[in-house]
Amino acid sequence: MSLITFGSMAFDAIETPFGKTDRIIGGSATYLAYTASHFVKPVQQISIIGYDFPQEDLAELTKRGVQLEGVEIVKDQKSFFWSGRYHMDMNTRDTLVTDLNVLENFNPVVPESYQGAEFLMLGNLMPTIQISVINQLKTRPKLIVMDTMNFWMEIAMDELKKVIKMVDVLLINDSEARQLSGEFSLVKAAKKVMEMGPAYLIIKKGEHGALLFHKEHVLFAPALPLEDVFDPTGAGDTFAGGFIGHIAKTRDISFENMKTAIIVGSAMASFCVEKFGPQRLKEISKKDIDARLAEFVQLVNFDIDLIG
Amino acid sequence: MSLITFGSMAFDAIETPFGKTDRIIGGSATYLAYTASHFVKPVQQISIIGYDFPQEDLAELTKRGVQLEGVEIVKDQKSFFWSGRYHMDMNTRDTLVTDLNVLENFNPVVPESYQGAEFLMLGNLMPTIQISVINQLKTRPKLIVMDTMNFWMEIAMDELKKVIKMVDVLLINDSEARQLSGEFSLVKAAKKVMEMGPAYLIIKKGEHGALLFHKEHVLFAPALPLEDVFDPTGAGDTFAGGFIGHIAKTRDISFENMKTAIIVGSAMASFCVEKFGPQRLKEISKKDIDARLAEFVQLVNFDIDLIG
Repeated sequence: MSLITFGSMAFDAIETPFGKTDRIIGGSATYLAYTASHFVKPVQQISIIGYDFPQEDLAELTKRGVQLEGVEIVKDQKSFFWSGRYHMDMNTRDTLVTDLNVLENFNPVVPESYQGAEFLMLGNLMPTIQISVINQLKTRPKLIVMDTMNFWMEIAMDELKKVIKMVDVLLINDSEARQLSGEFSLVKAAKKVMEMGPAYLIIKKGEHGALLFHKEHVLFAPALPLEDVFDPTGAGDTFAGGFIGHIAKTRDISFENMKTAIIVGSAMASFCVEKFGPQRLKEISKKDIDARLAEFVQLVNFDIDLIG
Repeated sequence: MSLITFGSMAFDAIETPFGKTDRIIGGSATYLAYTASHFVKPVQQISIIGYDFPQEDLAELTKRGVQLEGVEIVKDQKSFFWSGRYHMDMNTRDTLVTDLNVLENFNPVVPESYQGAEFLMLGNLMPTIQISVINQLKTRPKLIVMDTMNFWMEIAMDELKKVIKMVDVLLINDSEARQLSGEFSLVKAAKKVMEMGPAYLIIKKGEHGALLFHKEHVLFAPALPLEDVFDPTGAGDTFAGGFIGHIAKTRDISFENMKTAIIVGSAMASFCVEKFGPQRLKEISKKDIDARLAEFVQLVNFDIDLIG
């Protein structure tokens, strides 16, 4: 049941209408690992950090079954730093600071001990190094899932299309699906994106849930209506971590099981936004997750047999 | 199983990014009646029209079991006319023309033959005349459902709050729920709105579906992802018509049955947007509706038992 998770491990400073933080840990691979390790062990992490990344978080990840052999530590540089401010709707944000630091010269090396992994989750990072990770694997994983963002569509579309061609499942949000396809209708956009390579497409719509497309099929995963969304940072990565975590745990890559996996992803994302950073992902237990999944079942539990 | 539907019968001229129409029939009560009559007969209509409203539409409605005794015909005035232009996202629109015409002096009279109706659907119109209809009913219906819009929040909030206090189910969209409550979170907004009177609140989110709130419970009804949304005019009224139509047909006002009813409403709305005006509502058969409902079941059909 081995799973490789790849992406950034970083510091974030976040402002929302409800509060702000100084530097706290973040990064796509951090959220992926904290989430996926609730479902499967080991999680084999590939990332890069500087001298300043907290030892206690590395220890915490290790305790949770996250292997860090693939995490390069650069002794004389700082970790990647991102700072942003969310608007009232929590779906849009402005980037205030991006300090690449260690990311500037990141050439990921897949450790020999990670070879043979069945599942690969590529978090959002430069398409060229996503390709590098895939190419280093001697046996192609059973399932490759990839997250990306609009930034790469603007500055590296050709490379991005190359990775997209290589993966099984692509995760993007609604505006990215429109940008990538040139289609406004998400149904039309999904068709065009699947023609670019991936057999499965997940379109994330934030507070409005997510759609899973495959051939002519579509599944809708609702988002849980929450009293407070405290900090949406990492919600997309957490969704991805829950999705791949469930797939890796069950070792079932059928469309039927992916339907369940996006509900797991939605449930995990609903925890993520309750506090700043990955804090909630560290606090919750299997019991909390099961209770939240039961809420999702209730949320869409209508009895269509009543319609005669 | 008698149902009163109340609202405007009008002409609309619509521009969308995909086409435009000259004057076609519209109005909240028109959509309500065409939709509800798929489920229940008679539908007892209360509205007002001018000399120019097409005889063939009155005949068509009558054929479908819609009683028109409560529809006042003003011989020397024109019907209400609205013209609007939708933006690319189809969720926002600009009003170009509003000619009140017959609506200016509308004092609805509930015919004696409508007395004793079990269900009342108040489409969007001036709150004072919504109140007038309720007050004319000698026996309170088992369920009163009300639709309204932001316009009345801006110019007639006091009267609006009076009607809201008198109804069982309020239907508004997400931005109206925020405006009415002063809360951004829809969960918080729903609590405040239910404190104003209605035991049930439905928040419509257009292409993102709808939420049904009752006490601490919430149900999510997805919208069907469509290849093309041709014209969203009347989708909210059609949703309401499907909701009350199913309730009136089953005569079951339990929360469980309302869950089913909002799926029926979503399914009917998904037809409405496929062509300009109420055209699709005239074309579809019970078989079409059943097939569409089956699509909704598939859309959220995940198997949470898989999660062990």
